[in-house]
Amino acid sequence: MSVTAPAGFEAAGVAVGLKSSGEPDVAMVVNRGPLKVGAAVFTSNRAKANPIMWSEQVIQDGVVEAIILNSGGANCFTGSFGFQTTHQTAEKVATELGVSAGDVLVCSTGLIGTGDELFRSRVLEGVSQSAASLSVDGGVQASEAIMTTDSKAKRSVVTRDGWSIGGMAKGAGMLAPGLATMLVVITTDAVLDASQADAHLRDATRVSFDRLDSDGCMSTNDQVTLMVSGASGITPSASEFGSALAEVCLELSRQLQGDAEGASHDITIEVVNAASEQDAVEVGRSVARNNLFKAAIFGNDANWGRVLAAIGTTDAAFDPYDVDVWMNGVRVCTAGGPDRPREDVDLTPRATHLVIDLKEGSSTATILTNDLTHDYVHENSAYSS
Amino acid sequence: MSVTAPAGFEAAGVAVGLKSSGEPDVAMVVNRGPLKVGAAVFTSNRAKANPIMWSEQVIQDGVVEAIILNSGGANCFTGSFGFQTTHQTAEKVATELGVSAGDVLVCSTGLIGTGDELFRSRVLEGVSQSAASLSVDGGVQASEAIMTTDSKAKRSVVTRDGWSIGGMAKGAGMLAPGLATMLVVITTDAVLDASQADAHLRDATRVSFDRLDSDGCMSTNDQVTLMVSGASGITPSASEFGSALAEVCLELSRQLQGDAEGASHDITIEVVNAASEQDAVEVGRSVARNNLFKAAIFGNDANWGRVLAAIGTTDAAFDPYDVDVWMNGVRVCTAGGPDRPREDVDLTPRATHLVIDLKEGSSTATILTNDLTHDYVHENSAYSS
Repeated sequence: MSVTAPAGFEAAGVAVGLKSSGEPDVAMVVNRGPLKVGAAVFTSNRAKANPIMWSEQVIQDGVVEAIILNSGGANCFTGSFGFQTTHQTAEKVATELGVSAGDVLVCSTGLIGTGDELFRSRVLEGVSQSAASLSVDGGVQASEAIMTTDSKAKRSVVTRDGWSIGGMAKGAGMLAPGLATMLVVITTDAVLDASQADAHLRDATRVSFDRLDSDGCMSTNDQVTLMVSGASGITPSASEFGSALAEVCLELSRQLQGDAEGASHDITIEVVNAASEQDAVEVGRSVARNNLFKAAIFGNDANWGRVLAAIGTTDAAFDPYDVDVWMNGVRVCTAGGPDRPREDVDLTPRATHLVIDLKEGSSTATILTNDLTHDYVHENSAYSS
Repeated sequence: MSVTAPAGFEAAGVAVGLKSSGEPDVAMVVNRGPLKVGAAVFTSNRAKANPIMWSEQVIQDGVVEAIILNSGGANCFTGSFGFQTTHQTAEKVATELGVSAGDVLVCSTGLIGTGDELFRSRVLEGVSQSAASLSVDGGVQASEAIMTTDSKAKRSVVTRDGWSIGGMAKGAGMLAPGLATMLVVITTDAVLDASQADAHLRDATRVSFDRLDSDGCMSTNDQVTLMVSGASGITPSASEFGSALAEVCLELSRQLQGDAEGASHDITIEVVNAASEQDAVEVGRSVARNNLFKAAIFGNDANWGRVLAAIGTTDAAFDPYDVDVWMNGVRVCTAGGPDRPREDVDLTPRATHLVIDLKEGSSTATILTNDLTHDYVHENSAYSS
């Protein structure tokens, strides 16, 4: 059900030829209210796509009527023509729905530099078609229309007592914080105001999407949007809503990780006993971005030396001769020296669990990443063809 | 001729079984004077191998009699036993040569975590054998004994009027600043004191080895050493010596780049018109470390969008809509928008030249990197087996 699971939302996914495969490529999600609250977080890449620049303005007042998303072209670095395309897209959605263009978010994903006349005409056609196809059952189609190199659609629903949260996500490459070629739309029929929605969304993304670092490459187009209809009439407590939202975000993050381009291992890097959460994140990220470590995991090699070499590049508090490393339950390094033989570690399962014990404090953080594989290289060496 | 090209040096390379292949694996370079000046720069990785910790002490007084290097084991994260191995190695060199152990540098390279009793006994055997094999023609053998995954030995000699500089290097993976699994020994018979040697070495490495960033992975064992015999009796001017040393370092850097594990392209990233040299380096490095860009080059795809996405992650002064990008002489991006079609770029040659014009100032920097290939993944997924 995805984004149409909560009451008050309609969605659609249509095919207008942006993808050469003929698969659905334009999605729309509309909030029928009664609340029209929205919050969003955006890529921190300074090279921002046109839809990001547009959506950053739209979200200022916390009011969102609808979101339109296209795959098949990022509309990034396409000049003023590209920005006009985004503007026209929002205007057309507004006309179709009878709302203000200033309350319409726009997302695009695909190849950077794509955004010509043909792209524009197809996106605008997608607006018409999707507006005509809106349905309270449209969540699944919408989740399929935002796929690019994804092999499967990502959806998650959490239901609580009388209210729910639904979400959809796309992303398989450029998965790194800040965020990563990731478009996420989350809906809820719980009652929240704009500042609550914003605070909840920032809290949840900080420990979910922001800790997914598949390939260290930060996208120009990322956007995670929360839309609030309030249609349930129920106001959950902050902790209730926060934990439910975190559950949806983490579930979608896991689905993104599991479908990362070419990956053969989903690696969970758990950093424990760090001096601070920031240190734990920095250490986890440095390991997640170390190509040699990632290639070793692909080869089912418990090469813990590469883990320590990666930690050594950080500013985190740690003593190299006081660090323990566990891989899939086997302690391969104790106090910076060899422990059990690396051959004892079974790395054949896709799920890989690395624990790094820094022995400096009591903070922890978990980073999700993937291995570096032949297929990753292959998929990304021929992406634009 | 490598390190024995300048007068006053002897070297040897011997095989003692550290490499399962039976290839030479211990090298020694001895300075016969009259000067015994030495300077060295080390990895900035906080996780340092035992030989690095030893050599950092040895270099303090600027006096170096000899350097001993082994491949087949990094002696890193091998605990106090490993440090004792390094100490015993230096002591044995000192005894064989009749010098002080405090003037003997030690370098090791190979798998992290390798440094057991067998390793120690073989290294010590290598000291005896190499001391017995020292020769003024030993430079070539020494350069071969430090190879690990290198497919060829790296040597460079620059001859000036009556004096010369010779160098050897090893390194194919973990090539990143700070430095990178790179052991370099440079010799000269020019006359320099210790502070001059140190200053020249830092100047030269800053614009050569430190700007080679093949895979973003920083090693635990890197060391670049300059040994000065003064045997020519000639004191070149600072600019003469500096430019000759830079020539050797850059030539060795190019050889390291050309032999990087699995690479099919040698990519020169030239950042021009930056606001500062630091900005230029940061921008170049961010592109050099972007796996998506590197995979695209492997696939002969002039994907300039990934270049801009990488620049966007930096703190450098730039306007995304004012950047030009050239690939192999073709301007594919002008002012942050598409220019000539990417298909016009011929990326089939191994040498790849990327120019990024930031249009912010007048500073430039050049970063050397490689593409991300199937073979890189393959070689690094099976490295420890």
